[in-house]
Amino acid sequence: MSKTAGCCQNCLHYVFDYETTKTLVIPSTLVGCVFRLAQLLILLYTVGYVCVVQKAYQDTDSVISSVTTKVKGFSLTNTSDMGPRLWDVADYVIPPQGDKSFFVTTKMVVTQNQVQSRCPQLPSPSTTCVDDCDCTEGYSNPRGSGIQTGLCENYSTTVRTCEVFSWCPLEIDTMPPKYAMLTAAENFTVLIKNSITYPKFNFHRRNILPHINSSYLNSCEFNRATDPDCPIFRLKHIVSEAGEEFQDMAVMGGIIGIIIDWSCDLDWWAGKCYPKYSFHRLDNKDPDHTVAPGYNFRFAKYYKTPDGEETRTLIKAYGIRFDIIVFGTAGKFGIVPTIVNLGATLAFLSLIPAVSDWFLLTCMKKRDLYRKHKVTYLSDDAHTESMSLATSYGTQ
Amino acid sequence: MSKTAGCCQNCLHYVFDYETTKTLVIPSTLVGCVFRLAQLLILLYTVGYVCVVQKAYQDTDSVISSVTTKVKGFSLTNTSDMGPRLWDVADYVIPPQGDKSFFVTTKMVVTQNQVQSRCPQLPSPSTTCVDDCDCTEGYSNPRGSGIQTGLCENYSTTVRTCEVFSWCPLEIDTMPPKYAMLTAAENFTVLIKNSITYPKFNFHRRNILPHINSSYLNSCEFNRATDPDCPIFRLKHIVSEAGEEFQDMAVMGGIIGIIIDWSCDLDWWAGKCYPKYSFHRLDNKDPDHTVAPGYNFRFAKYYKTPDGEETRTLIKAYGIRFDIIVFGTAGKFGIVPTIVNLGATLAFLSLIPAVSDWFLLTCMKKRDLYRKHKVTYLSDDAHTESMSLATSYGTQ
Amino acid sequence: MSKTAGCCQNCLHYVFDYETTKTLVIPSTLVGCVFRLAQLLILLYTVGYVCVVQKAYQDTDSVISSVTTKVKGFSLTNTSDMGPRLWDVADYVIPPQGDKSFFVTTKMVVTQNQVQSRCPQLPSPSTTCVDDCDCTEGYSNPRGSGIQTGLCENYSTTVRTCEVFSWCPLEIDTMPPKYAMLTAAENFTVLIKNSITYPKFNFHRRNILPHINSSYLNSCEFNRATDPDCPIFRLKHIVSEAGEEFQDMAVMGGIIGIIIDWSCDLDWWAGKCYPKYSFHRLDNKDPDHTVAPGYNFRFAKYYKTPDGEETRTLIKAYGIRFDIIVFGTAGKFGIVPTIVNLGATLAFLSLIPAVSDWFLLTCMKKRDLYRKHKVTYLSDDAHTESMSLATSYGTQ
Repeated sequence: MSKTAGCCQNCLHYVFDYETTKTLVIPSTLVGCVFRLAQLLILLYTVGYVCVVQKAYQDTDSVISSVTTKVKGFSLTNTSDMGPRLWDVADYVIPPQGDKSFFVTTKMVVTQNQVQSRCPQLPSPSTTCVDDCDCTEGYSNPRGSGIQTGLCENYSTTVRTCEVFSWCPLEIDTMPPKYAMLTAAENFTVLIKNSITYPKFNFHRRNILPHINSSYLNSCEFNRATDPDCPIFRLKHIVSEAGEEFQDMAVMGGIIGIIIDWSCDLDWWAGKCYPKYSFHRLDNKDPDHTVAPGYNFRFAKYYKTPDGEETRTLIKAYGIRFDIIVFGTAGKFGIVPTIVNLGATLAFLSLIPAVSDWFLLTCMKKRDLYRKHKVTYLSDDAHTESMSLATSYGTQ
Repeated sequence: MSKTAGCCQNCLHYVFDYETTKTLVIPSTLVGCVFRLAQLLILLYTVGYVCVVQKAYQDTDSVISSVTTKVKGFSLTNTSDMGPRLWDVADYVIPPQGDKSFFVTTKMVVTQNQVQSRCPQLPSPSTTCVDDCDCTEGYSNPRGSGIQTGLCENYSTTVRTCEVFSWCPLEIDTMPPKYAMLTAAENFTVLIKNSITYPKFNFHRRNILPHINSSYLNSCEFNRATDPDCPIFRLKHIVSEAGEEFQDMAVMGGIIGIIIDWSCDLDWWAGKCYPKYSFHRLDNKDPDHTVAPGYNFRFAKYYKTPDGEETRTLIKAYGIRFDIIVFGTAGKFGIVPTIVNLGATLAFLSLIPAVSDWFLLTCMKKRDLYRKHKVTYLSDDAHTESMSLATSYGTQ
Repeated sequence: MSKTAGCCQNCLHYVFDYETTKTLVIPSTLVGCVFRLAQLLILLYTVGYVCVVQKAYQDTDSVISSVTTKVKGFSLTNTSDMGPRLWDVADYVIPPQGDKSFFVTTKMVVTQNQVQSRCPQLPSPSTTCVDDCDCTEGYSNPRGSGIQTGLCENYSTTVRTCEVFSWCPLEIDTMPPKYAMLTAAENFTVLIKNSITYPKFNFHRRNILPHINSSYLNSCEFNRATDPDCPIFRLKHIVSEAGEEFQDMAVMGGIIGIIIDWSCDLDWWAGKCYPKYSFHRLDNKDPDHTVAPGYNFRFAKYYKTPDGEETRTLIKAYGIRFDIIVFGTAGKFGIVPTIVNLGATLAFLSLIPAVSDWFLLTCMKKRDLYRKHKVTYLSDDAHTESMSLATSYGTQ
């Protein structure tokens, strides 16, 4: 047999022939069982944990969503300065257009008939003065009320403070009422309409589910136990599910997250994809580690007097902001994640023989016997001997 | 050869020597072809599907974006109660600041000169009464108009209803006009500026692409065929691409999603990253499975009469809300996903010999011959015999 | 030995016995070292790059967040038409409620006492006329000022323009002031409260970190070097970190992104999860490739004259919009990504023997010797010979 022919044959073999490993079967039930058990464990992990629990065979996509809200309800207040007054949606919901974040006013500090003029500041350690030398003209304290004019004026018969140029009269917010004004706000209801899309799967859905009809929507109210699909929520119910007391929270204001979880498994019938509502307080109640606790903001309504002067009513509104937070991930069978996860598990299966072999050749009693049959040691001087042996195989 | 020396030699071998499997080459073209074909299929899948189609070798990142909008246009209305009136952007766009969600008013129910006072409710089965006993003082129907005073008053010469304390006169929204008021709204245009970032790749881009200059922007209008890069959209065009008729939708209002898809492949020249616009109606048209169909909200403009009394004009605004929804995923070659995907495919390659062997040893005609050469069975009583045989290899 | 018994024994073997590959140990230090080195490299890559650098063993989740902002500061302006005027938060922040996007006015074009009436348009090439024939009744230029009445009127003693029905007097915005009005705006401060959640890991956090107390918050100001945890930002500092000059930007307006990066590694103590602030200009400064550079919008304040006529003050507000963009990904050890990444690496380990074998059988000097010991060629006529040889193993 010439070397050239062998080489050529080799090339053909390389393409057309099938090369398989020679194996040795060892009748050791112990090693066999350990080997099969390891294989079984890995298969169980793949099927059980990766596929069933984690659904790692799924492609995923993030939700994109659109939200509309509509609040309903009335509240009557009767204060000494404003008299009886009815508040409706146009009065207490800010902004009015029903976005994914809406604010329900529960308390207000109203300063009416402000005009641009000069007035003494509210007394405080940094504003009291004895004479004009204590006041710096043009100085403006960011936490103060306006630009100092440099004059020291009588605030009351006993106190003198630096005068400021500002919207006067100044807001007196050192004594905000300790109770909520719009106490009826807890019974306001909000209708939340939410439509979502998973663009990768071209999947669209609304939180008003197909089996819900208009007559049910006109009378229902969300309740986790009895009406979990109703998109109409009573504010008191939302706040109490977030672990708070509405009337307590209404005094200083706060932020409540209405969280809609659209985690969906789109592999089966689409009905599996439901919104799950939960409610959390998002701001920090703890006054020690925060600043400006609660939630409030100032805005103004502008008027003109008959002689053309601009006046405004400044309103410091306390209340609860409801942020509707939509999140979710949809999963659907995908060939790439399936291949990747199966492949990675198969790689572990290919690790088992290496471990079993190590166990076989080091821990078993008959390890020398096994080694002699399994492993052939080729020494440098084995050349001629092996050549002679090789001929007995007849094909080379 | 002593046992100790063999063990020691084994240790050295374990580190320095190369252990390879003994293989058997079987000249079966059938098995060989099946084997090569399987390898080829897996390689093709990896290259073709995983790499080219799914781009699984890419690291991905989600878009973060900022949107500005600016609407332009005028509309003239001529109603019996308001006379001729021109509407400009400051009148009909809410909120005015051009956020990623803007509302264009198309119809209004305006109730002017409301003051806090008492007036009989609008007639309905739940509000009509015969005498004061039918009206409960302090009762407030959330879907009603105010707080009942307990009196039964004449609404008209024929109907008596319970009086309420509220903003009077009450809004009459039972007869909203059946046609849109701002019919010219369909010709309004909106300029959308959108800048996006993929933070992981430190990639920034705007929807006004680098090759677009100011003079083009001053005259262009988006058209999928002729001007796909123009960021100025005619409202009628948006609504019609969403499959709706503007004038129909304008009557009851609705929500249109302007969806900007920034899916990008950042591997090649960055110009590959373009915004793709699409338009969808987001609210539910079907009146049977929804409540409060369309889109409207109430807001008020507050005035003061010369004698200081507060009055308001209540506006129930119907219109179309445009939500600009930006989403997208950018992919860029990443070493980790490449390794993971290649590795997982390689694991499948390592599965092929197992399958081929099974085929070889069960389905082939010469399976006994193959088995005899491939598999060596070690029996418990083979100890001495195999020992004697082993010596013929000369090296142990 | 009968065929049936062999088959039966085979079945039992298949379940209970352990089948291992026969191996050949080759005392070639070169191949051995190459082999070990390749294994080492792959292990190093796995441990070093995948695990330490990329943290590919982690499950990830995207942040959901809620933001509140509160601006503080005053500015005094003194213009010829309005006289001295103090601006406070209620005047210059739009919208007032402190959302994740807020606008600080820096310049205004105010058009007071507009009423619905007729007035000649501002002169421009498209509005000037000689007589009524040049003006089309009912025509409305979207970039114009109103609906043309068809008359040509004297705008001034020298120029005649087409008359429009609109809110008159018309806004004159061709000559906006070239300087910012609210120059003190650069010293306004903004408090940003941000609470985030990683829903998959049930992890909640606020940007006001637990170790920060109220007294620090009342006096601190964000500075990357000295106060990196303070959530109070000076507007000038924000703009200068974004690489812009506040007073330049204030003239035409613009958009600044306040980017809060909540990338978290939740494997260790949760304190590892801090917000990182960065600031970028989001709109396009370059006037050549944009339209309507800067940022401005129009809104109106509505008034009623004593005789009930509606007037409005139109305000074109220039200013800086601050968009707070929260993003982030949290990672936490997850069994599935760990398995997948380890598995994929193991698959590469299983590739090494194939490469080493190829190297052994083609590049080594003794390749023929190695091949003879490693590979057995089974030829079709080897049947009888191999049968006779096989008996010498004794067990078949």
